[in-house]
Amino acid sequence: MLNTPSIILISPQMGENIGAAARAMHNFGLDDLRLVSPRDGWPNQSAMEVARNAGCILEKVKVFDSLKEALHDIHFLYATTARPRDMVKNVITPRITANYIRQNSLNSQKSAIMFGPERTGMNNDDIILADSIVTIPVSDENTSLNLAQAVSVLCYEWFTAGSSNEEPIFKIGKSDFATKSEINLLLEKLENELDKKNFFHPAMRGRMLRNLNNIFTRNNLTSQEVKTLRGVIGSLTGE
Amino acid sequence: MLNTPSIILISPQMGENIGAAARAMHNFGLDDLRLVSPRDGWPNQSAMEVARNAGCILEKVKVFDSLKEALHDIHFLYATTARPRDMVKNVITPRITANYIRQNSLNSQKSAIMFGPERTGMNNDDIILADSIVTIPVSDENTSLNLAQAVSVLCYEWFTAGSSNEEPIFKIGKSDFATKSEINLLLEKLENELDKKNFFHPAMRGRMLRNLNNIFTRNNLTSQEVKTLRGVIGSLTGE
Repeated sequence: MLNTPSIILISPQMGENIGAAARAMHNFGLDDLRLVSPRDGWPNQSAMEVARNAGCILEKVKVFDSLKEALHDIHFLYATTARPRDMVKNVITPRITANYIRQNSLNSQKSAIMFGPERTGMNNDDIILADSIVTIPVSDENTSLNLAQAVSVLCYEWFTAGSSNEEPIFKIGKSDFATKSEINLLLEKLENELDKKNFFHPAMRGRMLRNLNNIFTRNNLTSQEVKTLRGVIGSLTGE
Repeated sequence: MLNTPSIILISPQMGENIGAAARAMHNFGLDDLRLVSPRDGWPNQSAMEVARNAGCILEKVKVFDSLKEALHDIHFLYATTARPRDMVKNVITPRITANYIRQNSLNSQKSAIMFGPERTGMNNDDIILADSIVTIPVSDENTSLNLAQAVSVLCYEWFTAGSSNEEPIFKIGKSDFATKSEINLLLEKLENELDKKNFFHPAMRGRMLRNLNNIFTRNNLTSQEVKTLRGVIGSLTGE
């Protein structure tokens, strides 16, 4: 069975953009739309009007209070952002993203592509959770993409990539990749233990946590490896 | 000089779609928008509002009474339509269209991509004028693309066809990647600390060490991150 990627809109402002995103998803064979804290609540009349015959996508939208909750069953997360960030993270094109997602799916791994709010784009705390940053190539003259058009480009590339039959490249042996919630539990355990030892300088706490999060997000940990690392932390702290 | 393709909208109905098309054109480096008999006349306030910072495209829009007039200086014409027509005509993908247009430009030939009205699509008399039909691949479930999103896909493919930026880019910020010896020192420190806590079952020791090695090898750690992890290990063991 094909695992189609989920589309996650973080704090979307305009119902029209949510509806237009749903319409593009339906055009290109995607159906799982997740909203994190939509500004105008849910359901949204403007979204319904713009979605037209993609109303079926909007009827089963899932709404979450936090991005972490929206990611509970996701193995690979791609953050769509135009901005260069001072962050150690793989930056890839929509086309390569589409190929990665197809490969993840062949390994039965679930992917999601996330998009930030219209005006501000994604914040660093959200981006850090992603395995890679996706940057849509745009002209230097106007780098500000409409949210729904950005969604369209990613959905279009995903659909188009389905015409080629590529073999999976990443061998995962007998284990499966960890879900985001498994990784979050690991990071929470690490954070708790480091708090007990007063590891963090208060002023640096947020930044240090982002750095640690990034280290353990971008290397495609398997469930077994997460277990190993939990064991390591337990052992080091003399549990 | 690069001949960028013109975008021609035939009898567009919604000003919002004209504005959104202009915005996508500006994102992807196109600037020549031609309208044939726009339903609500020209200029159009809704178009201006949606175009946002692509207003410069709308200011120089050319409006024509007929498609033939709009084509006066065009060498190659591509008709974007989803419908199969009973017509002997080359049908190509957006990606191939983009490559053709780039080639036309190298030969100093000017191309245009045209789109029909929202509800009805293009009529056969207009399609017959095209050199090729462009069909955006879509799901059978919903073949009705929003006009501006269809324009976005074609503009995006044109822009992408000119960028050689297909390889993933790894952003490392201000730090450098760690050397293998830095990573080995980290792993040795971890191994020593785990030995003190009798973490390893003797029979599993080699395999566990290989697993840990793999985790910290495959994610391209920076020197700064290795320092952070050494700090984490030191803190957890109460150094």
